Amino acid sequence: MTGPILGWDVGGANLKAARIGDVDQCEPTVLERSFPLWREPHNLSAVLTETAERLGGAGTMAVTMTAELADCFTTKREGVAFVLDAFQTAFPAIDPWVYGVDGRFRSAAAARKQPLEVAAANWMATATLVARSIPDALLLDVGSTTADVIPIVAGRVAARGRTDPDRLRTGELVYTGALRTPVCAIVRSVPLCGRLCRVAAEHFAVAADVHLWLGRIEEGDYTCETPDGRGRSRHEAGARLARMVCADLEMLGDGEITAIAEHIAQAQVRRIAGGIRQVMRRLGPACPCVAVLAGQGTFLATAAAEECGLITRDMAHDVGSAAARAAPAAAVAYLLAEMVDV
Amino acid sequence: MTGPILGWDVGGANLKAARIGDVDQCEPTVLERSFPLWREPHNLSAVLTETAERLGGAGTMAVTMTAELADCFTTKREGVAFVLDAFQTAFPAIDPWVYGVDGRFRSAAAARKQPLEVAAANWMATATLVARSIPDALLLDVGSTTADVIPIVAGRVAARGRTDPDRLRTGELVYTGALRTPVCAIVRSVPLCGRLCRVAAEHFAVAADVHLWLGRIEEGDYTCETPDGRGRSRHEAGARLARMVCADLEMLGDGEITAIAEHIAQAQVRRIAGGIRQVMRRLGPACPCVAVLAGQGTFLATAAAEECGLITRDMAHDVGSAAARAAPAAAVAYLLAEMVDV
Repeated sequence: MTGPILGWDVGGANLKAARIGDVDQCEPTVLERSFPLWREPHNLSAVLTETAERLGGAGTMAVTMTAELADCFTTKREGVAFVLDAFQTAFPAIDPWVYGVDGRFRSAAAARKQPLEVAAANWMATATLVARSIPDALLLDVGSTTADVIPIVAGRVAARGRTDPDRLRTGELVYTGALRTPVCAIVRSVPLCGRLCRVAAEHFAVAADVHLWLGRIEEGDYTCETPDGRGRSRHEAGARLARMVCADLEMLGDGEITAIAEHIAQAQVRRIAGGIRQVMRRLGPACPCVAVLAGQGTFLATAAAEECGLITRDMAHDVGSAAARAAPAAAVAYLLAEMVDV
Repeated sequence: MTGPILGWDVGGANLKAARIGDVDQCEPTVLERSFPLWREPHNLSAVLTETAERLGGAGTMAVTMTAELADCFTTKREGVAFVLDAFQTAFPAIDPWVYGVDGRFRSAAAARKQPLEVAAANWMATATLVARSIPDALLLDVGSTTADVIPIVAGRVAARGRTDPDRLRTGELVYTGALRTPVCAIVRSVPLCGRLCRVAAEHFAVAADVHLWLGRIEEGDYTCETPDGRGRSRHEAGARLARMVCADLEMLGDGEITAIAEHIAQAQVRRIAGGIRQVMRRLGPACPCVAVLAGQGTFLATAAAEECGLITRDMAHDVGSAAARAAPAAAVAYLLAEMVDV
């Protein structure tokens, strides 16, 4: 027995950690926090330390990351090295196990040598874990920022893409999410007084404003920053949405904001469904008919899966709701536990 | 004779000023500066003072603005009042003349009472000035952030929209520009190794990176901030473009970046052409066949005009190149001069 394991998913905007192996807990303890790494990379090691302490620490750590894409790094190579440096600073006595897109763990030293093997491998961790219990499924992990569409066929992860660019091309990565996605990246126009209106190409509003306005998330779920630095009330979200058509709440009423928000939400669903359909076309008759839903944006995943005629199953039923929201962090912890116990 | 006049175009991200009336200058003296008002609104009055001093000052001032849309203001009303307050602080002895979408100047006190009349009226100033010399034309003013498509018919400004939302609906305002536009607001996918690849919905790259890479602007023209805070070299712009498909310059070569950049530039041209065609359809046979080009993005305006079968004419031929780039600032100065001289 190795004692508790901490699993980490280090993103460019969010940090997720899951602790497993406590005898009195059958579900992992999970912490998620918004952490804009690109703005304060120097704080990463301190945030890692603090997060570990809040979870009670652990002597064994499993790491996956997407943070290497953050634009504070010139290349992925630089990003991977930076994240591993931060772990070394935060936990000098622990050599973390780093998960790769090949489904294997390696030491930090080995990971540094092959950075593209460990860059953006978090989807593989979640899918590998799901494949243990559901041998045929499409994993739909819709997070704050991106949506993963990962086929699992006959107990194996059947994704075609390995790098992010390949995954974007195959539909296995759809860059839209429940919170951080700028509205101007989702739609080019929205309905306004019965006609379509172009939107401003500005970072005026994000997906969180849309879903908060529509009541699909609560203020407490709006964990990313607001574009204008104001609050997360429905009124403030509505003002941000009005600004997308260069208007304000003195010009538009609630009904107009709702029509705009519904249009944007529907566009996100269509975008994710487009990724699902691309994966379904590639797999043909072998494609699973069950979608397993994970992440903070299960409401988007559900709608997209239903649009594609899939049966939905919530990953929370299998691993608990906290672990399903922070799926890659819990997954690397569970997968490492398998290796360590062997 | 009133002496020199300073014309101002106060945007949310840029400030333009033009001084006219100097006996030894037939062209206006123009200053443009990047000024992210939304981040440092408290600096506006100081920036106004400094800009006026650099231009030699003036006892008479004409003002137009779009800054009221910046998301540091809750409403346009608040934004208009803030800008006028900044003028009062900067130039306590001068009562500026504020231009409105009705083509008239008014005092600051009157402008405060009807903020929607003076919000985003800068296009009307440019179009009114152009109409003096070219009675039938489509004015295409493509700036750093937006494109205006303003019909001038029989010597009158024949725009249908008055407010920004109305202008976005009619095609008279297309929210795309030569510098600041986020790439994720322009395209959903780009070519990559012979296939289309989805792009990241992140503020990784802007239009300036595209046009710098393609050699359509120089480093000195890249006056807005870079998304990652790095430099404006072609290499750095290329790295930002690579990140749009979640790649880096270790993964992509120059040819791949060029294909991506050309696709994005073409999408911007199509977007502007879409606005032009919408205006042409509305006007029918009355639509002018000459496009008058202004702004920093005349290369985009030219391509869009040609795509729509229009003859192009550079506004610089009529007012000089500096005034054509900062057209609304020069226009309000000239229009006020007409009024004052009468």
